[in-house]
Amino acid sequence: MGMTHVTIQEARARIAPYITRTPLLRLRALDEYLGCEVYAKPECLQVTGSFKYRGAMNKILSLSDDQLQRGIVAASSGNHGKAVAYAARMLGVKATIVLPHTAAQVKVDTIQKWGAEVVRCELAERFEVAQRIADETGGAIVPPFNDKAIMAGQGTAGLEIAEDCPDLDAVVIPVSGGGLIGGVSCALKATLPKAKVYGAEPAALPRWTASLAAGQPTSVEKKATVADALVSLIPGDACFPYVAQNVDAFAAVDEEFILKGTKLIVSEGKLVCEPSSGIGAGAILQGLIPVSETDKLCLFVSGGSVSLEQLGNL
Amino acid sequence: MGMTHVTIQEARARIAPYITRTPLLRLRALDEYLGCEVYAKPECLQVTGSFKYRGAMNKILSLSDDQLQRGIVAASSGNHGKAVAYAARMLGVKATIVLPHTAAQVKVDTIQKWGAEVVRCELAERFEVAQRIADETGGAIVPPFNDKAIMAGQGTAGLEIAEDCPDLDAVVIPVSGGGLIGGVSCALKATLPKAKVYGAEPAALPRWTASLAAGQPTSVEKKATVADALVSLIPGDACFPYVAQNVDAFAAVDEEFILKGTKLIVSEGKLVCEPSSGIGAGAILQGLIPVSETDKLCLFVSGGSVSLEQLGNL
Repeated sequence: MGMTHVTIQEARARIAPYITRTPLLRLRALDEYLGCEVYAKPECLQVTGSFKYRGAMNKILSLSDDQLQRGIVAASSGNHGKAVAYAARMLGVKATIVLPHTAAQVKVDTIQKWGAEVVRCELAERFEVAQRIADETGGAIVPPFNDKAIMAGQGTAGLEIAEDCPDLDAVVIPVSGGGLIGGVSCALKATLPKAKVYGAEPAALPRWTASLAAGQPTSVEKKATVADALVSLIPGDACFPYVAQNVDAFAAVDEEFILKGTKLIVSEGKLVCEPSSGIGAGAILQGLIPVSETDKLCLFVSGGSVSLEQLGNL
Repeated sequence: MGMTHVTIQEARARIAPYITRTPLLRLRALDEYLGCEVYAKPECLQVTGSFKYRGAMNKILSLSDDQLQRGIVAASSGNHGKAVAYAARMLGVKATIVLPHTAAQVKVDTIQKWGAEVVRCELAERFEVAQRIADETGGAIVPPFNDKAIMAGQGTAGLEIAEDCPDLDAVVIPVSGGGLIGGVSCALKATLPKAKVYGAEPAALPRWTASLAAGQPTSVEKKATVADALVSLIPGDACFPYVAQNVDAFAAVDEEFILKGTKLIVSEGKLVCEPSSGIGAGAILQGLIPVSETDKLCLFVSGGSVSLEQLGNL
């Protein structure tokens, strides 16, 4: 079964008791910098601090009772790991989170505090290790993005944006593997067909720009980026067709502008956001997305995993 | 004429075309730290970055056409000066802002960018200089807090809180001269009589604790505080009776807890707030305000005037 507007609506009803229905914020202070009427979807205020909780919750609630009894497994040192651990706790399900030895201790502590079992391994082995645990226990893997239930969960944020601003002109969404933009673009094109949907990815890792040009998921060379939550080297094959159909254009944003966009959202927008979320504002500052003064534009602020020290260094 | 629920409602209609109707945010991530259901009124997202714009706009819109033609004058190096300059620009009125020589150049630049004339003087002389300019030009002074139209403007935020959470149990408001809490407590007691209203002031400058004990505005000794927007030495005499009638209790918060509260709102609440706004969370962390697990409590986040460098130093 595919992901559709209907499966996103079903996801919304399913996860409603657990998530924060985040508002759409009007960030007037950003208008003069970005040249349009600026709104933000502040998923930094979502439970566990990012939109990842929507998809993880929808996926877990879509599993059978049998599967839930055998537990769930996820590999992620970032927002996805936190989201899965917290969702499992809320639902009384056993979770195992596979974390690389390089994961920060504070993340390990948080995930353990929420009752998940933590298994450490080498960074490159983490998906293998997760699969092995799932095979041994009969538990279900909760993947970070390449899954229709995950995408439908993330898409619920799109339904909320459409409800809150029916005359929206455009939304800019940070992109890595494609789970968030896959769901949100599907929801928006069904509810606000005239609104443009733009993706923003690091210019250092232009997998979507490359893949859409090639007509299929195409991997790019590994490079460093300050947008440390947007590091997939290849689009998810489950996400690719939805993104190809529903996204109007992609911007490949330079590191300098990712940081400028982040700084703008924090210092003028007054929202704590990670560089991976500031990339949308960066795309506009770099002139990669066309806007006019009367456009109502929504920045998707996907998460706030950034330390006070990092903020100081901006 | 006094300030009443009715004059606050009139203020609301008057300023509605100009202000941001800020939402009430649910900050679930703070529940475990503060021991209750935490909400925030994010006036850091208000036009000019603080609630001050509400009162300034209401005051200016209450002046006669004659007065407006002669211009307006305000003395403030902080949020109030920015609010008056911006409101004047929106209304096409000439504004003169009196700033001490110690004011940061970035604030001077911002205020000038908005078209206001800036007059520099010694810090201690600023109110005298403003009065002299008003006398010479026939212009009207827009005071920072000790005025019923200013209070009524700030009170509009209270009407919004009551609308957004009709079963609110308590609100905690940062306090300096009393303009904000005077208006908001009046609005809340009229709309949600069961909700408790708490004021939070720096323990270093306990003018409200002292004044309420004395039964009249009483000044305290000048001392430094990290809450640099809460430095009035004496309550406003126009504010005092409203606060005495409508506020349930005051908390005098230690410097250490002002900083802890600020850090909590930024790092876990994901809102950029100045120490003068973090004081409410600090009051609860210090155990000065009684809360229970099922209480719905609103932190009034009054402004976000804080640099990235200051955030890094938290």
